[in-house]
Amino acid sequence: MPVITLLTDFGTHDAYVGIMKGVILQVHPAATIVDITHGIDPQDLVQAAYTVACTYKYFPADSIHIIVVDPGVGSDRRIVAMRKQDQFFLAPDNGVLTPVLDEDGEEQVCLVTNTRYFLKPVSQTFHGRDIFAPVGAQLAKGLAISKLGKSIDGADLVRLNIFKPHMTENGVVTGAVLSIDRFGNLISNIDWNYIKHHFPAATGDSLSFYIGDQFIAGLSASYNSVEPGRPLAITGSRGYFEIAVNRGSARQYFGTRQGDPVKVAVARP
Amino acid sequence: MPVITLLTDFGTHDAYVGIMKGVILQVHPAATIVDITHGIDPQDLVQAAYTVACTYKYFPADSIHIIVVDPGVGSDRRIVAMRKQDQFFLAPDNGVLTPVLDEDGEEQVCLVTNTRYFLKPVSQTFHGRDIFAPVGAQLAKGLAISKLGKSIDGADLVRLNIFKPHMTENGVVTGAVLSIDRFGNLISNIDWNYIKHHFPAATGDSLSFYIGDQFIAGLSASYNSVEPGRPLAITGSRGYFEIAVNRGSARQYFGTRQGDPVKVAVARP
Amino acid sequence: MPVITLLTDFGTHDAYVGIMKGVILQVHPAATIVDITHGIDPQDLVQAAYTVACTYKYFPADSIHIIVVDPGVGSDRRIVAMRKQDQFFLAPDNGVLTPVLDEDGEEQVCLVTNTRYFLKPVSQTFHGRDIFAPVGAQLAKGLAISKLGKSIDGADLVRLNIFKPHMTENGVVTGAVLSIDRFGNLISNIDWNYIKHHFPAATGDSLSFYIGDQFIAGLSASYNSVEPGRPLAITGSRGYFEIAVNRGSARQYFGTRQGDPVKVAVARP
Repeated sequence: MPVITLLTDFGTHDAYVGIMKGVILQVHPAATIVDITHGIDPQDLVQAAYTVACTYKYFPADSIHIIVVDPGVGSDRRIVAMRKQDQFFLAPDNGVLTPVLDEDGEEQVCLVTNTRYFLKPVSQTFHGRDIFAPVGAQLAKGLAISKLGKSIDGADLVRLNIFKPHMTENGVVTGAVLSIDRFGNLISNIDWNYIKHHFPAATGDSLSFYIGDQFIAGLSASYNSVEPGRPLAITGSRGYFEIAVNRGSARQYFGTRQGDPVKVAVARP
Repeated sequence: MPVITLLTDFGTHDAYVGIMKGVILQVHPAATIVDITHGIDPQDLVQAAYTVACTYKYFPADSIHIIVVDPGVGSDRRIVAMRKQDQFFLAPDNGVLTPVLDEDGEEQVCLVTNTRYFLKPVSQTFHGRDIFAPVGAQLAKGLAISKLGKSIDGADLVRLNIFKPHMTENGVVTGAVLSIDRFGNLISNIDWNYIKHHFPAATGDSLSFYIGDQFIAGLSASYNSVEPGRPLAITGSRGYFEIAVNRGSARQYFGTRQGDPVKVAVARP
Repeated sequence: MPVITLLTDFGTHDAYVGIMKGVILQVHPAATIVDITHGIDPQDLVQAAYTVACTYKYFPADSIHIIVVDPGVGSDRRIVAMRKQDQFFLAPDNGVLTPVLDEDGEEQVCLVTNTRYFLKPVSQTFHGRDIFAPVGAQLAKGLAISKLGKSIDGADLVRLNIFKPHMTENGVVTGAVLSIDRFGNLISNIDWNYIKHHFPAATGDSLSFYIGDQFIAGLSASYNSVEPGRPLAITGSRGYFEIAVNRGSARQYFGTRQGDPVKVAVARP
């Protein structure tokens, strides 16, 4: 049975998430529902997109990932269903699928316009309940995404532009802090793939990291490679470089916020 | 298989909710358990009652809604089981069922006194674990509520008095902010049913909303009907009028707190 | 089917917990997964250990309790699997199992070193995903813990030293605040077993509780035994003595923090 995941900015204080689950279970009583998080900062599309990209590859084939971070609810923004890499995604067309679109592989994308699968009447304020939940439950029951609306080209979807680093000068890659986790780790948008593509001979020791007005030499193998309270750079669990502080918070240490710049300089032999 | 929902003020920092789930799964290993929220402000019966009322209609028939917001635990307050509109409710008799009782339809209510289904010894401090969880699990397995204790009249249950607006002067309805959600939307206790009952000719354009010392003319069709940062009134996802700010927070904009007054004035043609 | 519980300090803002669930469901699609809490303060081993000890007894036989509060991830700290009292535990060897080890009963303990069951490549930063989740899922499917690595003696596991009170002078037991819950209740590490062992004739009325520079006479039967806003001592839901304030917060009333001392004096007849 396909898994349904939920990723929203609804928080867990209100009943919104519980209501979505009730609607899913009405359509599909045997559904397995997994909360990714409901703690995305309200309407923060970058955080949501980063979180989707971290997550989906770890789920069984045919999982349905429902993403409701949707500042445009009630406007004419589109809702789309996408199949890619043996997973399904159901989201507003507002950029939250950017890093999934950037991955290798073909995608099949359909608009979600067939009201047959919606909960009626459809409100102007809560499409999570009225559209995403019942449509996601139908997909988990095996409905083909082509039944939801007309097919469109993935290249036509809205994209956010923060997910790619760039080369600012010879040997310097400029990126940004995509996300800051609960431990205060600063997750950048720069990974080994990007570095190796441009500098095939680079090693961990040849890298220097610049964050705020500070400097970290080399890539560490574990948090414990430095003394407690000291900063380090490390390859994080998703493959991106992260700035961390051993048994402390890099967020506090550097005073960093999401979106702040990170640079990586590569020393040439 | 009936769904069991949990609504508490236990938070998710402590183990209380996990313990309740363990007890449920011991009684009923195949239970489907859905968290509505555990973030009700401690002992806030109005918030809890509002949240129950928002939620239960979206669940499959025969769902069991367990509500543990229970400042009187260990006192002589009663625990009741109720069947209404094809749903079950298990709650302290402290008013949290008020809006469900106000709905149309017959209810069947029983006291929960039969210790046979309790986890022993019953503590004085955690009836969620010792009474609500095992009794709720029994109901999900099909136990009749009449087995729990003697039948009582729904009219004898404790009620909260915030759930109804009233007419303060000719053409002005005075209500209150029942709830404020994570986005800062102010959810009032006034809905179209109430307005139409008293003013059958009223339209969205004929309504004016008063919140704090400010005034909003007319009911909007979507958040995007006004410029970002500007306030509006809208029919919320539960049918109540809400005061919102497009891509912002009405809570911050108006400095409103739960329980604050809201007025709706109806212009007569 | 055995239940899998998750207890971490990952919070619910990031995707870490969702990712662990995805990995579990890939290995074991029918898994029943229960969140105990992900709100342990980052790297707070005492809180985590207390929470494990509160929880496991309420779960069905053969449940697997996965505990990932793991400041040493990526270092040479060990990971262990333990069977005790018909439950399984999977945790770093950092003391989080202390109160379970202190319970009566034999334990069977194995190191978790067999990489066959790990998600590869194993990162240096997220063993929750790469080791704990897939190994826990295998245990839920029936894998014997002896398959995970060599057997070791439970006495060789790391222990925390906060879980036991001691006798500081004749008739005075000195303990500490193990945990403070959402309601501000102060949970001590002193219970009736300890008092009765040393003072077999002690009764609730013969006890006096000292917290900060204040004094509470006698043990109450329920929160409602005192006026709202007044402090009391009570036997909490886990059996430990707690300091509470009726319809208020003892945390605020006394300005207490986790780890602060609590004393119980026993009056002799």
